[in-house]
Amino acid sequence: MIIVMQAGASEEKLQEVIERIKELGYSPHLIRGEQRNVLGAIGDEREKTRLQYLEALPGVERVVPILRPYKLASIEMKDEKADERSIVKVGPDVSFGGNKVVVIAGPCSVESRDSLIDTAKEVKAAGASMLRGGAFKPRTSPYAFQGLEEEGLKILADAREETGLPVVTEVVNPEDVDLVAGYCDMLQIGARNVQNFALLKRLGDVKNPILLKRGMMTTIEEFLMSAEYVLSAGNPNVVLCERGIRTFETATRNTLDISAIPVLKERTHLPVIVDPSHATGVWQYVKSLSYAAVAAGADGLMVEVHLQPEIAMCDGPQSLKPGTFKELMDDLTKFADAAGRSL
Amino acid sequence: MIIVMQAGASEEKLQEVIERIKELGYSPHLIRGEQRNVLGAIGDEREKTRLQYLEALPGVERVVPILRPYKLASIEMKDEKADERSIVKVGPDVSFGGNKVVVIAGPCSVESRDSLIDTAKEVKAAGASMLRGGAFKPRTSPYAFQGLEEEGLKILADAREETGLPVVTEVVNPEDVDLVAGYCDMLQIGARNVQNFALLKRLGDVKNPILLKRGMMTTIEEFLMSAEYVLSAGNPNVVLCERGIRTFETATRNTLDISAIPVLKERTHLPVIVDPSHATGVWQYVKSLSYAAVAAGADGLMVEVHLQPEIAMCDGPQSLKPGTFKELMDDLTKFADAAGRSL
Amino acid sequence: MIIVMQAGASEEKLQEVIERIKELGYSPHLIRGEQRNVLGAIGDEREKTRLQYLEALPGVERVVPILRPYKLASIEMKDEKADERSIVKVGPDVSFGGNKVVVIAGPCSVESRDSLIDTAKEVKAAGASMLRGGAFKPRTSPYAFQGLEEEGLKILADAREETGLPVVTEVVNPEDVDLVAGYCDMLQIGARNVQNFALLKRLGDVKNPILLKRGMMTTIEEFLMSAEYVLSAGNPNVVLCERGIRTFETATRNTLDISAIPVLKERTHLPVIVDPSHATGVWQYVKSLSYAAVAAGADGLMVEVHLQPEIAMCDGPQSLKPGTFKELMDDLTKFADAAGRSL
Amino acid sequence: MIIVMQAGASEEKLQEVIERIKELGYSPHLIRGEQRNVLGAIGDEREKTRLQYLEALPGVERVVPILRPYKLASIEMKDEKADERSIVKVGPDVSFGGNKVVVIAGPCSVESRDSLIDTAKEVKAAGASMLRGGAFKPRTSPYAFQGLEEEGLKILADAREETGLPVVTEVVNPEDVDLVAGYCDMLQIGARNVQNFALLKRLGDVKNPILLKRGMMTTIEEFLMSAEYVLSAGNPNVVLCERGIRTFETATRNTLDISAIPVLKERTHLPVIVDPSHATGVWQYVKSLSYAAVAAGADGLMVEVHLQPEIAMCDGPQSLKPGTFKELMDDLTKFADAAGRSL
Repeated sequence: MIIVMQAGASEEKLQEVIERIKELGYSPHLIRGEQRNVLGAIGDEREKTRLQYLEALPGVERVVPILRPYKLASIEMKDEKADERSIVKVGPDVSFGGNKVVVIAGPCSVESRDSLIDTAKEVKAAGASMLRGGAFKPRTSPYAFQGLEEEGLKILADAREETGLPVVTEVVNPEDVDLVAGYCDMLQIGARNVQNFALLKRLGDVKNPILLKRGMMTTIEEFLMSAEYVLSAGNPNVVLCERGIRTFETATRNTLDISAIPVLKERTHLPVIVDPSHATGVWQYVKSLSYAAVAAGADGLMVEVHLQPEIAMCDGPQSLKPGTFKELMDDLTKFADAAGRSL
Repeated sequence: MIIVMQAGASEEKLQEVIERIKELGYSPHLIRGEQRNVLGAIGDEREKTRLQYLEALPGVERVVPILRPYKLASIEMKDEKADERSIVKVGPDVSFGGNKVVVIAGPCSVESRDSLIDTAKEVKAAGASMLRGGAFKPRTSPYAFQGLEEEGLKILADAREETGLPVVTEVVNPEDVDLVAGYCDMLQIGARNVQNFALLKRLGDVKNPILLKRGMMTTIEEFLMSAEYVLSAGNPNVVLCERGIRTFETATRNTLDISAIPVLKERTHLPVIVDPSHATGVWQYVKSLSYAAVAAGADGLMVEVHLQPEIAMCDGPQSLKPGTFKELMDDLTKFADAAGRSL
Repeated sequence: MIIVMQAGASEEKLQEVIERIKELGYSPHLIRGEQRNVLGAIGDEREKTRLQYLEALPGVERVVPILRPYKLASIEMKDEKADERSIVKVGPDVSFGGNKVVVIAGPCSVESRDSLIDTAKEVKAAGASMLRGGAFKPRTSPYAFQGLEEEGLKILADAREETGLPVVTEVVNPEDVDLVAGYCDMLQIGARNVQNFALLKRLGDVKNPILLKRGMMTTIEEFLMSAEYVLSAGNPNVVLCERGIRTFETATRNTLDISAIPVLKERTHLPVIVDPSHATGVWQYVKSLSYAAVAAGADGLMVEVHLQPEIAMCDGPQSLKPGTFKELMDDLTKFADAAGRSL
Repeated sequence: MIIVMQAGASEEKLQEVIERIKELGYSPHLIRGEQRNVLGAIGDEREKTRLQYLEALPGVERVVPILRPYKLASIEMKDEKADERSIVKVGPDVSFGGNKVVVIAGPCSVESRDSLIDTAKEVKAAGASMLRGGAFKPRTSPYAFQGLEEEGLKILADAREETGLPVVTEVVNPEDVDLVAGYCDMLQIGARNVQNFALLKRLGDVKNPILLKRGMMTTIEEFLMSAEYVLSAGNPNVVLCERGIRTFETATRNTLDISAIPVLKERTHLPVIVDPSHATGVWQYVKSLSYAAVAAGADGLMVEVHLQPEIAMCDGPQSLKPGTFKELMDDLTKFADAAGRSL
């Protein structure tokens, strides 16, 4: 931690800060500058977050953290064997973070048994490795369809039975974690719950791997801190999903932060996938962004597919029809090749 | 709802959209333009959210909603008696939304019995009407202090006993709603949980009034939809709290959206207060923003006060010392007067 | 400047950075940390911007500037006599930065001689101290009204003649600086030109005071750097104007950054005013934000007033009618009083 | 244009709006709804921007534009021959918008004759088609290097002579347009000048093609309106360049809006390229984003390359060394192939 003193802060104030640094268990280190003094505080900041509050002391202008605030999620965890990244396995056949680009596809929400199973067959035939579908839906409006809940979970399990595709679905309430974990292979934490810490902590109690979506308001640092919650709760199997952030631009529902892929790859060993459907909110743009994501190094994609988007109970405008999804998968192969990976 | 067709969309596509509008229970109304056609769909959109998904139909460029998506939170609920706004009462003495500007003050988190009671006495003496203090703390880092939990709730109840100030505290987990409701007068939903719908729905089960904080990336419309969740779950006593939104500016922790006050006053009958401490993150700016909030028409303030900010377990840099809070309250009286209100 | 080395960066890389710091004329100062090393580089950073580029050296993780990058605009320029702030005078009667809150009012653009003079009389009668009106209009669309140009400047000069109000108008082209300076008392640099450095540099050639508007995506630091351009070009009379920044919120045209007032007051000696009309884009919100701005410490306001907003050539929806402006001024007196100032 | 009336607006107010619509030369078309009335105003909105100002009329809630505000930049200009997009030629050998992905490379600023010519040779050898280099530099700080100005233009011309690469450089002042046009093949308008309308209008006076960079604060609609300024001034040769927008995320200098590629391709016939260097500000991320841009359909790239980034006069941290640029070009070939294009 670096503590920058105000220009002209008195020697007395400086000494007070030095004392406080020592009290908090750090070693102070003074650099006298021409215009202002700077203090280094040596020690592991991650156990001792209160050092930030030295900003409240008289004479202190600013406190600058040096270390990243996460540990278990950090790439430095793995640095002895530099190219070892985490592989997160879902069922016997799916691995996130390896050479294969994993594509998850399916509808926004589970609407009926027949439509889900038909969709599952279509996406499997096109080359998808996993099935998605929401049973508990977080909706902005209390009057919007809220999902089939446990009935939806059963339908997801049936679709896995029929097709062999592992399934991922969202959990929104800490009370439902065990229920959802019992039916589904992978648990998704949605964008609106990325800082629902009560929910994150509960994920340590299950063995299922977690698909953690970035919030539309979450910085990359905060996103990794949310992953750290899950890891520190005892669940090491976390896949990160970039799905667009909120900006001033309104041509798309959100703005896909494509740079998050190389930034995350530099900072964490966890696999990173992209959801181009929520990022844009417009099905016409999903293909382009899927190719871009794989080109930028993403370990996978999650794409919304619906048999009849115009009557979907949610997110119709961003859902692909099966035929378009098939085209996407065919072209995606070339980009995966270019990236030295397979589909 | 207005449906804008693409330039040159065929008559056949137009007819298909018209049919779909009818199927969904609306009356279609066609306006033929020089360059493109536009359809009005008449009917109450709020019961029928799927109309938005017409955007997925071929030939449709855009769907523009006309009605606000909330009902119970809408000012139009009250329009027969135009100046009747909701008054939310907390205990016998505190009313949000009336002539009196309500000031809530206290530390970010409950740290110990003694320090909370001392703080409560100080803020009461300075003129505050309610006490705040966190027992369950949503922290970005899993390694940061997470609050005293039930022990903190007991201390809050003791502080009320000692000073007579009603207390407000945050609840973060649906499972804890009854517990927190048993100890505290008012329940706070924090910014990170403003779209935690599982939590919002549970608030209909308690009688306590709710302090709902805007998320740092929540639009005003979404904020009102979150209030609608609580209202439609059966709890009519909601106070809205603007606390800063996330923008590109880093000089302050967040950017106080002062305009939200007149915008909310125009759209909803619910009381609106402001939290200048979280909005800025810097105690030096809290006074200015408090005066501005009351001048702009806020019904109250929530201000962080700590006996020794430099050793606070959280949010020290944005906390006022009791002496500064006293100065704030003294000057605030003048701005409340100018706004035709009392303190 | 603080240079943070990567965890595990070799001693050799560290020595290379130290050598480079010396070459650039700074004194290096090494802090050896538990996980990574940190270097202080002592010397005045403002003359030597290239130090930032040490980030490109192998082994360097990050470079953190310590000093603010502006000098002439900095409050530290004035710190010997702590409460001395700059007063910017316009004509014999108007002073920005003193006890009096200065209100500038008038239409978005000069439309005709008669309408401008009538508006000028109205705003003067209501208590405004200066007249605004655009002759050169930067419009998003090339097909929109671009202003009356020199004819508009003449009308502005006539309005001053008739009413005695000093006039401010925008200049958009370096070639026009002398022309505009010849007709008007104060030159405005609009939000879109806040980083038009060719234009800013030309302002050193005239004696007129400058009204510099913050860009809709300009940080406070960048805004002060733009002021620094004008100051360093030789024109010391700069008034800063906060007018809303661009955020995700669409309920208002921009989001008024009310916190910018105390932040700027802390960092610079220059006067700060607020434009609530452009900030909101909605006339109904202008009163509330005007009161808030003065309560937060603004030295003045710039408000759009039009005789018939519904037929204005630009910005009608945000313009007040003279009657509403009169009400605003009447109530503003109370808030100025509360702030210890006069109107 | 759609005019939404307030709920409960009187018949009289409605009639007044209808009258005004007629006066302005449009045909009004009334849709009576259950809760509020809506008016369509038929006619070409692009010639008549004042219709927006009906929002200032009593009883009007909101005005919603239906047509895109640009004409010459619109894809609809070309829709008779659906797949005909504009090709912008620079010199005899370079075409933007065709099958070939065009790569522009070079330093942020021209620093010396030798270094520029060496860089030009390197980037040509690696496969670049054009050379970039700044002679007039818009810098946030007045104390930063401002460019070699005309001397820099001469060096650029020399580098073209030596290597045969056409050159592009930025122009920042309307007065310099002819000067820059005399030395360079293509004129760049930088991000900070995207709404410098005085500068844009001057570009109609030269024959050189224009590289128009999106501002960090510019919506896609506004960006196309800026292109419309150039096109309507008489210069049809405009290439658009996405270079990152400003968001809350600070891990990168800006956030590359990768979605802008498909959105622009849908709305305009103009070529679209990407500048990954300014978008990220970090050289380590430039390769990933270059591949992503081409995968998403970009017609080209502009990449900063410097012989010794750590001593660059500007933007060192985002500049590639020639060796890294060579690697980028080698891998880019595969992604161009996957996209059905050549390099």
